[in-house]
Amino acid sequence: MKIFDDLRGQNMVVLENAKQSGRKVVGMYCAYCPQELVLAAGAIPVSLCGTRDEPIADAEKVLPRNLCPLIKSSFGFAITGKCPYFYFSDFVVGETTCDGKKKMFELLKQYKPMHIMHLPQGADRPGALSWWKEELLLLKERLEEELGVTISDDNLREAVKLANSEQRAVKELHELNKLDPAPLSGLDLLTATFMKGFNVNRFEGIALVNRLIDEVKEVIERGGSPFRAGTPRILLTGCPVGIGSEKVIRLLEEGGGSVVCFESCSGYKTLAMLTDEDERRDPLEAIAERSLKIPCSCMTPNEGRLELLGRMIREYRVDGVVDLTWQACHTYNIEAELVRGYVRDNFDIPCLHLETDYSNSDLQQLKTRVTAFIELLDKRWT
Amino acid sequence: MKIFDDLRGQNMVVLENAKQSGRKVVGMYCAYCPQELVLAAGAIPVSLCGTRDEPIADAEKVLPRNLCPLIKSSFGFAITGKCPYFYFSDFVVGETTCDGKKKMFELLKQYKPMHIMHLPQGADRPGALSWWKEELLLLKERLEEELGVTISDDNLREAVKLANSEQRAVKELHELNKLDPAPLSGLDLLTATFMKGFNVNRFEGIALVNRLIDEVKEVIERGGSPFRAGTPRILLTGCPVGIGSEKVIRLLEEGGGSVVCFESCSGYKTLAMLTDEDERRDPLEAIAERSLKIPCSCMTPNEGRLELLGRMIREYRVDGVVDLTWQACHTYNIEAELVRGYVRDNFDIPCLHLETDYSNSDLQQLKTRVTAFIELLDKRWT
Repeated sequence: MKIFDDLRGQNMVVLENAKQSGRKVVGMYCAYCPQELVLAAGAIPVSLCGTRDEPIADAEKVLPRNLCPLIKSSFGFAITGKCPYFYFSDFVVGETTCDGKKKMFELLKQYKPMHIMHLPQGADRPGALSWWKEELLLLKERLEEELGVTISDDNLREAVKLANSEQRAVKELHELNKLDPAPLSGLDLLTATFMKGFNVNRFEGIALVNRLIDEVKEVIERGGSPFRAGTPRILLTGCPVGIGSEKVIRLLEEGGGSVVCFESCSGYKTLAMLTDEDERRDPLEAIAERSLKIPCSCMTPNEGRLELLGRMIREYRVDGVVDLTWQACHTYNIEAELVRGYVRDNFDIPCLHLETDYSNSDLQQLKTRVTAFIELLDKRWT
Repeated sequence: MKIFDDLRGQNMVVLENAKQSGRKVVGMYCAYCPQELVLAAGAIPVSLCGTRDEPIADAEKVLPRNLCPLIKSSFGFAITGKCPYFYFSDFVVGETTCDGKKKMFELLKQYKPMHIMHLPQGADRPGALSWWKEELLLLKERLEEELGVTISDDNLREAVKLANSEQRAVKELHELNKLDPAPLSGLDLLTATFMKGFNVNRFEGIALVNRLIDEVKEVIERGGSPFRAGTPRILLTGCPVGIGSEKVIRLLEEGGGSVVCFESCSGYKTLAMLTDEDERRDPLEAIAERSLKIPCSCMTPNEGRLELLGRMIREYRVDGVVDLTWQACHTYNIEAELVRGYVRDNFDIPCLHLETDYSNSDLQQLKTRVTAFIELLDKRWT
């Protein structure tokens, strides 16, 4: 795990060197942005910073205070020059997912050349797939123009294979936690998963994850785990979490729980699906098909999330669900009502909905609620 | 004006009678929902309640507190049975405009048969018009199925003419306020404009507006106006306002201003455009074309709003702009930054951004800000 902690600093050096040698960098904010297209263009796709509290005060000079911390943090990082990935990006891709991001991008485009992808609001809509494929085509054309390259179908197929290998590796790591007790703490799983967005060299990144898998398997063989037997197993769903915004995971584990899996888009939500590698298919369509299926709360309806939750609750043998909403994230906040109902009606386990931001101002209050929740889970198994 | 005040009660009786005689009623929440299709189906299109504070407490038992009052009020009215229009609706149409409404509709569909229209997120997107036309076709088919009717092109053309007549009448009324001093107070203009959504008989509604226009013209000829010469002329933009949520208009006029026009979708934003009546055209496409042009903040980019604002500032000879955001309405709240910049860079007039809800809890604070704003405008002209 030590390697992953140091990765951020190392990636920066690699990124700077790559830039100096003429490589192009494309910044992305969201799982709907197909990194395969950027890889196929021979450029480096990077996730942009948005998981720390520090730049939010600067963002609030322009953006409303009552907006989700992820959006404010992303904007603050970008405009203050404190996100090296944004700084090094030649070009940034945004999407019309939620209202906050969609409108924030209108302000952000003053700072960097941007391309906005228009996502259909429902995956099952007639024509949604062809619309989304057309959006991928527009992005492809824009990338070709901005980066001065031509993206062939073979480039795309190769990129799909690379992205799939990465997905498979991180998915395998995530699934090691199906074991009881879990071999990885939620914080370690988050660290390893989170870093994949910042890997400049994807092959090295995959190799690192595979090395971690081997190490964890050794620990498992020795019967090791950070948790005692019977530790309440928690599934975390809702808004994405990253390094800097992990306070709820920390509280849950300090309070005696084991966060065994993340359903969020920073976790299993996007790992659960691979792009079809069938050589006879149009690779752009295959990429569109996969990404359109991501069960994000920005979609209506979003039944895929409930199905995925059910599968994860069963497969990870979960004792309780924590649904995290970043303050003012309307889509996850309203969908929480459906999640609560689904968990209640289909599983006999408790569900805790938390609404918070990146600050520490509500830490004590959260701790009280989290502790009570863990006690509730603990009692069920003792 | 007295007639308009009594209209709500009268409409209810007419609506109940119409229902009893077998007429169908279709409830709508948004200007993007094309009432022409409902009219063409021989049904009664009605706007649904969502402009009063009362049902919000009930809505907050299910919806998050941190959500725009318009959405909470709409949901609260519907689930408590306190909106007779919702109650009498056979069928309700929603749209994917903002995140809050989009996800609220997922909960509302338990209470009434619903159809959700998927709006493209940008009007200038390639394919946006054909997508939106397809959505209108889906709605048409759903209406035909639910109401047991067939909607012909001729039905549609007739409905377009009727809707256009209504638009023209209300637009003419609205434009009478280009006179200085304005012949209509903002509150009266709001009352007359707002009621159009609740008219069961459109022809009678149009006749009423025309009668009001004649009366106002008489008042103008006599040199009458509710305002003294030199009263600061204010344009209200931002979130829609209705009867029950008019507190900002009231404060502005009590504070010595004259709200001469509304740029919002409850006002001039939707009046400024007519549907093309060319008989050779596909009427569905003409309807799609017009409604897609509505410059709502849910669109990205939404440059049409700034253009419209500029035109209205000039034509209504406006001294100041008030930009109203309902709390937690992210799209208008973020777009406020663009509005502020546009007004500053293009017109030498002050712009006040207010964020509030339907309650009276911030009345004193609003009053202080509004009074200071009016004084600022007054000083400029004395």
